[in-house]
Amino acid sequence: MQIVSTTIDTATAKQLVDEYIGGYFNQRINEAAQLGLSYVRLWQSIENLILAGGKRLRPYMLLATYQAYNPEAKLSDIMPAAVAHELIHSAMLIHDDIIDRDTMRYGVKNINGQYNEHYSPFISDANERAHMSLSVALLAGDALIADAHMLLRKINRPTELINQAEAILNKEIFEVIGGELLDVEVAFLPKGAISLDTIAIYKTASYSFVGPLTTGAVLAQAPENDIAILKKLSIIVGVGYQLRDDLIGVFGNPAITGKSNASDIKEGKRTYLVEMFEQCASEEQLERFAAVFHHPTASNDDLEMVRGLLTKTGARAAVEQLVEEKRLRAVSMVSSLSLNEDAKQLYFVLIEQSLNREM
Amino acid sequence: MQIVSTTIDTATAKQLVDEYIGGYFNQRINEAAQLGLSYVRLWQSIENLILAGGKRLRPYMLLATYQAYNPEAKLSDIMPAAVAHELIHSAMLIHDDIIDRDTMRYGVKNINGQYNEHYSPFISDANERAHMSLSVALLAGDALIADAHMLLRKINRPTELINQAEAILNKEIFEVIGGELLDVEVAFLPKGAISLDTIAIYKTASYSFVGPLTTGAVLAQAPENDIAILKKLSIIVGVGYQLRDDLIGVFGNPAITGKSNASDIKEGKRTYLVEMFEQCASEEQLERFAAVFHHPTASNDDLEMVRGLLTKTGARAAVEQLVEEKRLRAVSMVSSLSLNEDAKQLYFVLIEQSLNREM
Repeated sequence: MQIVSTTIDTATAKQLVDEYIGGYFNQRINEAAQLGLSYVRLWQSIENLILAGGKRLRPYMLLATYQAYNPEAKLSDIMPAAVAHELIHSAMLIHDDIIDRDTMRYGVKNINGQYNEHYSPFISDANERAHMSLSVALLAGDALIADAHMLLRKINRPTELINQAEAILNKEIFEVIGGELLDVEVAFLPKGAISLDTIAIYKTASYSFVGPLTTGAVLAQAPENDIAILKKLSIIVGVGYQLRDDLIGVFGNPAITGKSNASDIKEGKRTYLVEMFEQCASEEQLERFAAVFHHPTASNDDLEMVRGLLTKTGARAAVEQLVEEKRLRAVSMVSSLSLNEDAKQLYFVLIEQSLNREM
Repeated sequence: MQIVSTTIDTATAKQLVDEYIGGYFNQRINEAAQLGLSYVRLWQSIENLILAGGKRLRPYMLLATYQAYNPEAKLSDIMPAAVAHELIHSAMLIHDDIIDRDTMRYGVKNINGQYNEHYSPFISDANERAHMSLSVALLAGDALIADAHMLLRKINRPTELINQAEAILNKEIFEVIGGELLDVEVAFLPKGAISLDTIAIYKTASYSFVGPLTTGAVLAQAPENDIAILKKLSIIVGVGYQLRDDLIGVFGNPAITGKSNASDIKEGKRTYLVEMFEQCASEEQLERFAAVFHHPTASNDDLEMVRGLLTKTGARAAVEQLVEEKRLRAVSMVSSLSLNEDAKQLYFVLIEQSLNREM
């Protein structure tokens, strides 16, 4: 994201956040030593994972919003709130990886993966070892959920504002858990039982956009009207981000996006793009699609054929159109914020980065 | 537990706590309806599980301690703190059941179990269904961990005391997660790598005794010296409780204790009793023990033989002696509390109930 004149840039935010995270893990590792080396290893595993990747965009959005509404304020006052959002994000990724049975994240072994390796001399049965590794990842996520709350108490703002920040965090967690549940069930419940829009709002928009932006604004005592606008804006941008992500997962160039453009189709991921296709396609097109979708062994030619179908039926264009509508709505909402034009740049850039990501 | 004159009795505590829990779930179920019926079902499953059992001893200990140090105070002021401890307990049980692959709790289906049934029309493969059910139980526990923190903010006491209560809760969670980790690993890491005493302190004593007692005392602004005594007392009682529980798991009468006296031996649970045996037994006794211990198909005669070995070698007597020492130490500590004799009864009863449970 380009540097915006009046608020912190992403690189500086990441550096400050990572410094704070380093201090937090130092403390936890020291405390874990009281329980024994096993516990030290768990905290080191979590630190390894978190520092291996992640752009800290949630903390960045929180810090930048705080600064936009409170330009003279010290970011260190609210750094614990920013880091709390990163911990919740990490906890959700760790638990999501359990649900998805993944062993990698950010190109390195996740908690599951690290413990599968660590336990291999002690547990020969692969299923048993996978279960024990999963159990440790479960505990790791639990610890981070608890610590996110603890960090909020270290915010240097009036108690009333900290309590509001905690209420927002609690709502985010309640919503992302609901979103995760729906995302688990959409894979096997009857078609139409669960709305993909609801999943996007609750699994993606809530804790990744609404939480960081409104927390930053609340802690800066932004006008109520602005907080309400930021909330609506975040939902629109979050849902649009998910739609764009679905497009990237099929049509993106992996060299640019860093994301596979094959696995969504091979794994049969139900997206709005797929739903649009099903509404527009002929019987014959549906059959050709079904022969490839959700087939892990699909060839590159198969995938190219499916991309062709998604394009030809107009499903791709319909999703692109929807993202564009969201982009325009979001841009017009930024205009209503009580910020000066310089500070508004922050949100214009955020919208472009989220809804117009290069693919 | 018998009624103690100056503080609340267990039955009244359970009733008040369950009323509060009912209101909490009503609210969550209403909010979940915004996300859809799937999420409503999850919250109903959690409520079903929690209301199916549990004696609410942690909330009771917290409420009674608060009252002992603050006899005129309204319990409703701190009810959210008591319920927060029950939610953390429930979260830990739900996640512990994932680790142990259990589907029952309190004689009813746990979250795992309820979802395994619910998903059976949609997922035919038993392994796949077990994984999806486990994933939902994972999310359920996460939600309760977050909500325990949220509840603390509803305590009607000065912010400084609420923050202290949150620091205690955070420490409990940090410690119980460490204790759970050690408990996972003790099953397969080399003997002696992990101290059973450490597991008992961190898995049992910390969140089940130290947390509730010290939270009640802190919220009542008990003298610092009393809080320090209660903390030490809790660790002693918690570890003694675990030792007594280990004895019950082998020598108890299931009709009295409600707990199997066979599964610990069949599952090969490493307890202090087993460690004592290994230190005292002859080669021949060790061999006979090993032929039954950790053999799920052991007969009643086999189990009786193992009980005989544990008794004959003096292992049982050694553990009983250790519990008795802890009981005496705990009783003498109560004498140093600044409470009047009536209020002290609370702790004398707690010690008897924990360390002298009928078996």
